[in-house]
Amino acid sequence: MKIGIIGLGLIGGSLGLDLTAKGYEVIGVSRKKETCDRALEKQIVTTAGQNLELLSKTDLIFVCTPIEAILRTIESIIPHLSPETIITDVGSVKGAIASPATKLWSNFVPSHPMAGTANQGVEAAEYNLFNNAPCVITPLPQTSPLAITKVSHIWETVGCRLYQSTPELHDRAVAWISHLPVMISANLIYSCTHTSSPEVIKLAQALASSGFKDTSRVGGGNPELGLMMAQYNRQQLINSLREYQQNLDLLIESIEGENWEALTNILQETHQNRPNFI
Amino acid sequence: MKIGIIGLGLIGGSLGLDLTAKGYEVIGVSRKKETCDRALEKQIVTTAGQNLELLSKTDLIFVCTPIEAILRTIESIIPHLSPETIITDVGSVKGAIASPATKLWSNFVPSHPMAGTANQGVEAAEYNLFNNAPCVITPLPQTSPLAITKVSHIWETVGCRLYQSTPELHDRAVAWISHLPVMISANLIYSCTHTSSPEVIKLAQALASSGFKDTSRVGGGNPELGLMMAQYNRQQLINSLREYQQNLDLLIESIEGENWEALTNILQETHQNRPNFI
Repeated sequence: MKIGIIGLGLIGGSLGLDLTAKGYEVIGVSRKKETCDRALEKQIVTTAGQNLELLSKTDLIFVCTPIEAILRTIESIIPHLSPETIITDVGSVKGAIASPATKLWSNFVPSHPMAGTANQGVEAAEYNLFNNAPCVITPLPQTSPLAITKVSHIWETVGCRLYQSTPELHDRAVAWISHLPVMISANLIYSCTHTSSPEVIKLAQALASSGFKDTSRVGGGNPELGLMMAQYNRQQLINSLREYQQNLDLLIESIEGENWEALTNILQETHQNRPNFI
Repeated sequence: MKIGIIGLGLIGGSLGLDLTAKGYEVIGVSRKKETCDRALEKQIVTTAGQNLELLSKTDLIFVCTPIEAILRTIESIIPHLSPETIITDVGSVKGAIASPATKLWSNFVPSHPMAGTANQGVEAAEYNLFNNAPCVITPLPQTSPLAITKVSHIWETVGCRLYQSTPELHDRAVAWISHLPVMISANLIYSCTHTSSPEVIKLAQALASSGFKDTSRVGGGNPELGLMMAQYNRQQLINSLREYQQNLDLLIESIEGENWEALTNILQETHQNRPNFI
């Protein structure tokens, strides 16, 4: 099987490393010549270039661009492809991609491998990035079962644990465990730096330790990623934030009313339930 | 200098290990005989016992009990002490301790070393726990400068970075960077397990990865610690939670109104400001 990868950054590059190592013919396309050169040097791909025509003989193409470029990338490769070619993507939101991408190309399979590091670009590509990472395939009713099988097989080849759901269910789940944490974590940093007393902020900065460090990590990350989550998963994120806020009201009420039994119940429950997520 | 430690768990035990290793005479008191035996075996102390009378000849006593036991522990040792003996504590809230403890014993110095691990008890005691950890001394106007100097010296001996503030300023700062994170993190776990769709919860649990893991860590910790923070630092914690909630409203408004410039500003600011805390 001849595989194409568009976008040779952390995700596309890491996928290429594993597939090339496993003996696949991998054709990489990037807008930048330096990225193509580096991808060849690092053995991320077997062929690399800036021209989309290179993809004309591929069986399966992974679109590994940032989410806002996925649809226009598909549009631009279509003139070069034969109809049997399968296209998939790696976007972290599926509702905004699955349906319009399928309209552009009926042999499209929406997917989302949940892997990453704090680094970006071709230099960040690493072997085994997907090992044991969850990967969600979110087909539409009309998505070809054969195409789903082929895409799933490649993700399993690089070590992913596969899940299937509707695009909507995927977006609701990631709103809860990925996008909501970014917003509440960012709001922690924001609140700690905007409280009225400079004295308090200064001492807080001196005293912050591992608890603050962990809770603030995703909120202090790449601002473009946070913006993308809000733009592309807006409604599900708003729903999660609103529920979060209502629950926070109850928690604050329990403290204000010194209802220590209610607060104990909440904290015991969260202590018991966290292991179900990790 | 002869040092007493009451409570030989993670904090008291680790302090004893370092001080004994540095050649101090360390007298440890615990309610349990097994703890005393273990503390001697592990060279946490040079003398150990269950009887508070053992402390009668000490120069400086560290009360390392849970916060709710600090005041009654001080009351119970007073009959055995000479007036020059200095008492200090390690409680993580200072407003509820500094003033009543000073009324009980004028030679009292409130302190809070900010160190810890996820473990508890004498077996959790470890060398160098305090190395480079912040320690806040929160004296009252009437606290003896000599006593402050002596207590500060011991904390510096085990590697702490020392800070001084009022008890109120301390409690406001730790509400922001320690107690608020616990509550917003717990509320994340609570919200993710209480949303209405079992299907969403199941997929969310399967997909949760490092972002959720880090953001939920302190909220899934020991429920008694979270309760203690709320009980002993109630007003400051409520103030922080209310400000947090108002800021969250603004963040949600920016997403609802698709005011991407406002959201970008927030996320860029948190990205820039996080390093000031860690």
